[in-house]
Amino acid sequence: MVQLPKQPVPSSPAPPAVPTSADVARLAGVSRATVSYVLNNTRAVRISEPTRRRVHEAAEELGYVPHAAARSLRAGHSRMVLMPAPNVPVGALYSQFLNELQWALSRLDYTVVQYGSIGLQGDEAARAWAELRPVAVLVPGAGLGPQGVHVLKRSGARAVLTLGPERVEGAHTLLLDHDGVGHSAGAHLLARGRRGVGVVLPLEDGLALYSRPRLEGVRRALRGTGAAVTELPLAYEEESAARLAARWRSLCLDAVFAYNDEYAMLLMRALQDEGVDVPGETAVVGADDLMLGRLLRPRLSTVHIELPSGRELAELVDRVVRDPAGVPEVHQVLGARIVHRESS
Amino acid sequence: MVQLPKQPVPSSPAPPAVPTSADVARLAGVSRATVSYVLNNTRAVRISEPTRRRVHEAAEELGYVPHAAARSLRAGHSRMVLMPAPNVPVGALYSQFLNELQWALSRLDYTVVQYGSIGLQGDEAARAWAELRPVAVLVPGAGLGPQGVHVLKRSGARAVLTLGPERVEGAHTLLLDHDGVGHSAGAHLLARGRRGVGVVLPLEDGLALYSRPRLEGVRRALRGTGAAVTELPLAYEEESAARLAARWRSLCLDAVFAYNDEYAMLLMRALQDEGVDVPGETAVVGADDLMLGRLLRPRLSTVHIELPSGRELAELVDRVVRDPAGVPEVHQVLGARIVHRESS
Repeated sequence: MVQLPKQPVPSSPAPPAVPTSADVARLAGVSRATVSYVLNNTRAVRISEPTRRRVHEAAEELGYVPHAAARSLRAGHSRMVLMPAPNVPVGALYSQFLNELQWALSRLDYTVVQYGSIGLQGDEAARAWAELRPVAVLVPGAGLGPQGVHVLKRSGARAVLTLGPERVEGAHTLLLDHDGVGHSAGAHLLARGRRGVGVVLPLEDGLALYSRPRLEGVRRALRGTGAAVTELPLAYEEESAARLAARWRSLCLDAVFAYNDEYAMLLMRALQDEGVDVPGETAVVGADDLMLGRLLRPRLSTVHIELPSGRELAELVDRVVRDPAGVPEVHQVLGARIVHRESS
Repeated sequence: MVQLPKQPVPSSPAPPAVPTSADVARLAGVSRATVSYVLNNTRAVRISEPTRRRVHEAAEELGYVPHAAARSLRAGHSRMVLMPAPNVPVGALYSQFLNELQWALSRLDYTVVQYGSIGLQGDEAARAWAELRPVAVLVPGAGLGPQGVHVLKRSGARAVLTLGPERVEGAHTLLLDHDGVGHSAGAHLLARGRRGVGVVLPLEDGLALYSRPRLEGVRRALRGTGAAVTELPLAYEEESAARLAARWRSLCLDAVFAYNDEYAMLLMRALQDEGVDVPGETAVVGADDLMLGRLLRPRLSTVHIELPSGRELAELVDRVVRDPAGVPEVHQVLGARIVHRESS
């Protein structure tokens, strides 16, 4: 633990007053309305270039910045797209998608705000988000129920979209088709002649939402083929992997779909330490197509996952904001294809 | 690319009006002030339990949520702590730190909002943040200059803190001492008898801010010892690592500090593919202490990095909010210690 020293708090003078648009108007010698027109870039009103410049200079000199809240109160709505920040560590793939989405929304003149929902349960989170009066809410994962959607809409959100494995009533849903990820892995292992397929189910919180549909996808691929599926609970710890590897041969498996590349790397190492030959005795497949998987020997086979493009998703948000009463849409939006390397 | 279908936009009725506190007051049969007292939990005013209940029931029935912006306009300040979201993918270590910090701030009754600064240059970002009128701004990385600090303070931010490798004038600074990370690695390699130390400098955008002070730390550890430092630019790609490994023996190095564990894994694999013995011919040290480093053979030596505790940082934010005029403090807040495994 790094200690921050506890310093005594000195008594202090009051901070300087925050400059207002009235201060700017006074300094520039114009009306408050003119300040508002200039700083909010209102094109409907003609204002001469010298006046515009005077207002900007006065704002600069005073350090005045418009108040987004006041502006949204006046306009009756905001341009804020609220995105709850995910509570689980996000991978490089998801980070890149988020960046692309934020970029695309800012191009459409939306402001993206990520809101932590840590410490909030269920609809409490939706109420906290609603207090900020976002014009759109885009919820990754599965933190939002139908009641939460209702609260958000009643407080003025024109677009509520979820991005997760399940449909939420009242919201537009981008269904992340994790079933398809498992199906790709299962079909590949079957094609490689494997008949006893283990499927890793991470024990870490919050991942069942993704691992369960992936498991179902494997089952679907193997249905009616005579191949069998075995569920393998696994914690992301060396000890947990070592215990599983120690009883591996008693499980009579010739393949494993390890949820993602990180669990696959963990389990493959443990199997190798037990003397299990990969892929000879057991084929191993991960998911996410991380670069690190290529550095292993044998190189890790994986399912490459394609998220929707940030630009298209931004356009969907904008379309729903313009037409808030449209029937909620459901889109399947996860591409999955096997990348066959050496471990399977 | 996953395509979202472009659906025709049906014409639609206007959305229902957003309920206001006046609607709640009418339904509950009380004044608007009473609604405000009850829903904002004002303890200074005595309100009977049945009245409180009536207000809560009316709010629930109407789906009314207080407007944070209106409340902060009335109160003159908010409880919003704004944190710019990092633009680079964050590791598991940093994610955990962020979660802990958000949790601790919510315990102190602050609302944490992460704001993307994508597409904004320099002080533009500070102005966009200022529009939300946060009471505190906590900036990770190095996106904020002295002018930005000034803009934020002038718009009412009582606490501006930065968390990065450099001091920013006017802000409280939590100095992430990356020099110390490099120093740990350098001192360890020296103690292991190494005399030619390569230091990886990632070519990826935004990382020089961290890699330069780490390099300086290695130099500091080796100064006056006769050991030499060689800079090794490296992109996070197999081809880049293979090219470096191919000319490895001409560099006359017996050790490398590889910036972090991911670059270390990449480079160690490339060296092994070239037949370079690790650690016999070349010792390899990473940083971050990722679990994956333990799965390699040889197991990766690393620098374990300790970020400040979220709870202590939350308390510092709260202290500065209460005393905004205090002299800006500078704290060194990165713990670094070597974890010696097999690769060095």
